[in-house]
Amino acid sequence: MSDKRNLNVCLSPELFHLFSEGKKIVVVVDVLRATSVISTAFHYGIKDVIAVESLEAAARYKGKENCIVAAERNAEALDGFDYGNSPFQYMNDEIKGKTLVLTTTNGTRAINMAKQHVVIISSFVNFKEVYNFIKNREEDVLIFCSGWKGNFNMEDSLFAGKLAEKLLNSDNFQSNCDSVLAAISLYKSAENDLFLYLENSAHRNRLKHLNMEPDTRFCLSPTFESDIVPILKDGKLIRHEK
Amino acid sequence: MSDKRNLNVCLSPELFHLFSEGKKIVVVVDVLRATSVISTAFHYGIKDVIAVESLEAAARYKGKENCIVAAERNAEALDGFDYGNSPFQYMNDEIKGKTLVLTTTNGTRAINMAKQHVVIISSFVNFKEVYNFIKNREEDVLIFCSGWKGNFNMEDSLFAGKLAEKLLNSDNFQSNCDSVLAAISLYKSAENDLFLYLENSAHRNRLKHLNMEPDTRFCLSPTFESDIVPILKDGKLIRHEK
Repeated sequence: MSDKRNLNVCLSPELFHLFSEGKKIVVVVDVLRATSVISTAFHYGIKDVIAVESLEAAARYKGKENCIVAAERNAEALDGFDYGNSPFQYMNDEIKGKTLVLTTTNGTRAINMAKQHVVIISSFVNFKEVYNFIKNREEDVLIFCSGWKGNFNMEDSLFAGKLAEKLLNSDNFQSNCDSVLAAISLYKSAENDLFLYLENSAHRNRLKHLNMEPDTRFCLSPTFESDIVPILKDGKLIRHEK
Repeated sequence: MSDKRNLNVCLSPELFHLFSEGKKIVVVVDVLRATSVISTAFHYGIKDVIAVESLEAAARYKGKENCIVAAERNAEALDGFDYGNSPFQYMNDEIKGKTLVLTTTNGTRAINMAKQHVVIISSFVNFKEVYNFIKNREEDVLIFCSGWKGNFNMEDSLFAGKLAEKLLNSDNFQSNCDSVLAAISLYKSAENDLFLYLENSAHRNRLKHLNMEPDTRFCLSPTFESDIVPILKDGKLIRHEK
């Protein structure tokens, strides 16, 4: 028996139950855009994030002191909520010290599905710090792609490939999972220009229609790096203290 | 609205419910090895194939006239059954005119899940003829990867990529599905040497342990081509008559 840590990639929420055995670090990924938004919000000083699954649950926080309530469905922001799912909205000092209540089509569902594990939030915004966090612990790791309405999506799989490759290269990890191989292979095909590679992807087409090219460019190639790893504690995402 | 036919790839049985809308051609793929076995058996003259999900259901056919009963679980043949899941077992004249009753870990499950659609069986053994079958019809197409115990696997996805690429190149198909893009990208990375590419895949590792390299080589690069498309009619796979 090898004493290396196990690494797996879960390509969609519909497959998550296949990885239920053992408590592990679950790295939740929703590159376009929930986990990029959460990483950005922490970088700009948000105190904590409550990820809720339904619009009704989010709406209950409306008007509460120090709360920003944000909602997205089918890639669009919703009327009646303070914020949507664009990282640019969170690049301001107004959010400092506040609680963000967030519900999105895919990412918030994934966060809640994984809550019996050590849940951390990852995106290209905080990639390096997530790698460092994982390296300094001992649990097995599952990179959990939020996908699109239950199905596989390309952008989360590319992110999973980048992180999986770096972890396997560190020599502390082993994998016997085809999803890991596939994600790495896809990332290697795409890494020279993620944006170009995703040009024909389903979600890019959805976002094109909504004029969200700046969001996509930022999420794939952020203009800053965050050294914060959001971690789920008692139902809230908080900043992991090193 | 384009009048092109829609093409999708379903990467695992756990995702199949996401593609339930509309009656379509479902191309069931279990390269290692159920659909390679079925293609081979038809090439060697089997009359029909009954794919059953449980060992109990298969066992009920034992001793019936003109029936061959075959069972596999976890890549291994099972005691008490006539045949297992190796295509080489079916390359003999004994099977001519008989009914094959087959239960396997993944492939037979996929066949039964899809039965409300037009179900055909595909592998590298009958690749060209499956392409011709699809080209001559008008329905939308879903390439359905049987996977491994519900999860994504590499070999079925590579096959899906090869078929998807050929269909999209024919110009009668459109796709807005990231699984299609991913399968094609993986196939392009692998096509020069599928066997080498799969060297580290999870199922290759399972089969290595069981000394099944000849099976794997045959399934990835068959020594003959079959011009038969097995199609599901009234619960049985029969040879599609052109």
